[in-house]
Amino acid sequence: MTESPTRTRPVTGTIYVSRLLTDRAMNHLHALGAPVRIGSEAPPDRAELEAGISGASAAVITLTERIDAELLAVAGPQLKVIANVAVGFDNIDVSAAEAAGVIVTNTPGVLDRASADHTFALILDATRRISEGDRLIRRQQPWVWGPRMLVGLDVSAGATLGILGYGRIGQAVARRAHAFDMNVIATSRSRTPGNIENGVTFVDASTLLAESDVVTVHTPLTAQTRHLIGAAALAAMKPTAYLINTARGVWSLRRR
Amino acid sequence: MTESPTRTRPVTGTIYVSRLLTDRAMNHLHALGAPVRIGSEAPPDRAELEAGISGASAAVITLTERIDAELLAVAGPQLKVIANVAVGFDNIDVSAAEAAGVIVTNTPGVLDRASADHTFALILDATRRISEGDRLIRRQQPWVWGPRMLVGLDVSAGATLGILGYGRIGQAVARRAHAFDMNVIATSRSRTPGNIENGVTFVDASTLLAESDVVTVHTPLTAQTRHLIGAAALAAMKPTAYLINTARGVWSLRRR
Repeated sequence: MTESPTRTRPVTGTIYVSRLLTDRAMNHLHALGAPVRIGSEAPPDRAELEAGISGASAAVITLTERIDAELLAVAGPQLKVIANVAVGFDNIDVSAAEAAGVIVTNTPGVLDRASADHTFALILDATRRISEGDRLIRRQQPWVWGPRMLVGLDVSAGATLGILGYGRIGQAVARRAHAFDMNVIATSRSRTPGNIENGVTFVDASTLLAESDVVTVHTPLTAQTRHLIGAAALAAMKPTAYLINTARGVWSLRRR
Repeated sequence: MTESPTRTRPVTGTIYVSRLLTDRAMNHLHALGAPVRIGSEAPPDRAELEAGISGASAAVITLTERIDAELLAVAGPQLKVIANVAVGFDNIDVSAAEAAGVIVTNTPGVLDRASADHTFALILDATRRISEGDRLIRRQQPWVWGPRMLVGLDVSAGATLGILGYGRIGQAVARRAHAFDMNVIATSRSRTPGNIENGVTFVDASTLLAESDVVTVHTPLTAQTRHLIGAAALAAMKPTAYLINTARGVWSLRRR
C-alpha cells in the first residue's frame, strides 16, 4: 500500500465517486470544488465503472469495485489517486496501481469503534434474543410474559467472551465486554498464551473455542484464517455457544 | 416491606409456586425437600391462585399475581412467607400481609446488571438497526450492500446518552455507555444539576430531553414518574432521538 501524501494539494480534474456515499461524505467531496461524477447507490457494473473512471483524476470507490491493470489503462494516465472507502483493499491490484503511478488510499481505523459497536449489538441481540422478541411483537399475536420466556444468556453473570484476533477491533470489543463484566479471552499472533493484558487472557484457538460462551471473529482474511471457522471449529465450541462474525472470515464458511 | 429473616429455618409445609420458573430456580426449590405445588407457565387466574395458595406455608409468586387481604384469608394462617420474584411489589398489599403476619420478600439487585444489559441491547438494536437487518435477511429477497444502507446512529462517535433516573440500573447503564465512548448525562433526585460523578453529568429533565441522542428511562413507578414520558417529553426530544424504556414508567404512555 502506497503511503498517503502528507500535504494537501488542490484537486484538479474530475473526481469519480463510484457509488453515492452518505450525505456527509458527499458534502465533503463537493466542497473540494472539482467536478464530481457520481454513480448510483447500486454497485456499478464493469462498463459503468470503466465509463466512470475514464478521464478522472481521482476515484473514490468501495469494496464492490474491482481495480485491475486493465481498468487502470482504461482510466488513463491522468488518474492520480484511488481512495478505497474501506479498511481492506483486496478489491485493488495494488502492484498494478503502483506501476501506473496511482496512489491508493484506504480508511484504516475510522470504523474500528463502529465495528466493535456493531459486534456488541450482534452479541447482545443473539444472547438477549432481541430480534426474536421484535418478531414476536410484530406478529401481533397475543402473548403473556412468563418467567421462562425469552430467557437467553446472562452475559454479565460470568459469561466468557472469546475474541479470535486481538487487533484494533478485537481490542475495542474487549473494552466493551469488560463493562458488561464478561470474562474475556483472546487469541493473538503476537502474544503468548497464558499472558494477561488489560484484563484479557490470551489462549490458543482450541482453548478459546472450548471455553467461550460467545465467540467473536476479528481476524484479517488471510490464507491462514480463510477456513478458520468450519465444521471442526463449530464442533469444538460449547453446544450452547454463540458465534458472531463481523470479519471477512465469515465468507470462509460459504466458500468451503 | 418486611425485612427478610437473617437465619435460615427449615421449610415445613407446602411451597406454592404460582408459575413454572427457570430450571435452575425450580431445582433450588425442590432441593428444599418440602412438597412443592407448581402452577403452569401461564399466569394463574384468581381461582387457580386461590386453590394454589390455600394451605401453603410459602408462596413464590411473580408480578402477575395480585395478593390482597381477601387472598391472604383464603391462604390460611399457616402462610408464613410470600416471595415475590421481582424487584417491584406493587402487586402485593404489603400492609395486609403485615397484618396477617406474612413476611414479604422481593429480589432487589439480582437483575440490575441483566436489566442494564437488556437496555444496552435495545439501545444498540435501535441505533445500529439490528432487528431491521434481521428482517431484511429473513425476507430472503435479493439485496446488495451500499454505503448508505442501514446507516444508523454512530453511538461511539460522540453520541449523548440521557439516563432518566440514576439508580442501580441507571448506574450500570452509564458504566456500559462509557465503554462505548458515549457522552453520558443523567437526572437524579439526590444530585445537583451541573455536578459530575464517575463521568456522568447531572442535568435537569428538560436539558436531558433536549440534548440526548438516546434517552433511556430508569425511574421507579411513582405518582411523579407515571406520566414522565408523554407528548410534552417527546416534543422536547431531538427529532432524531431514540427512546428506550425498560422501566415500569413505560406503561404511563399507554394509560394516559
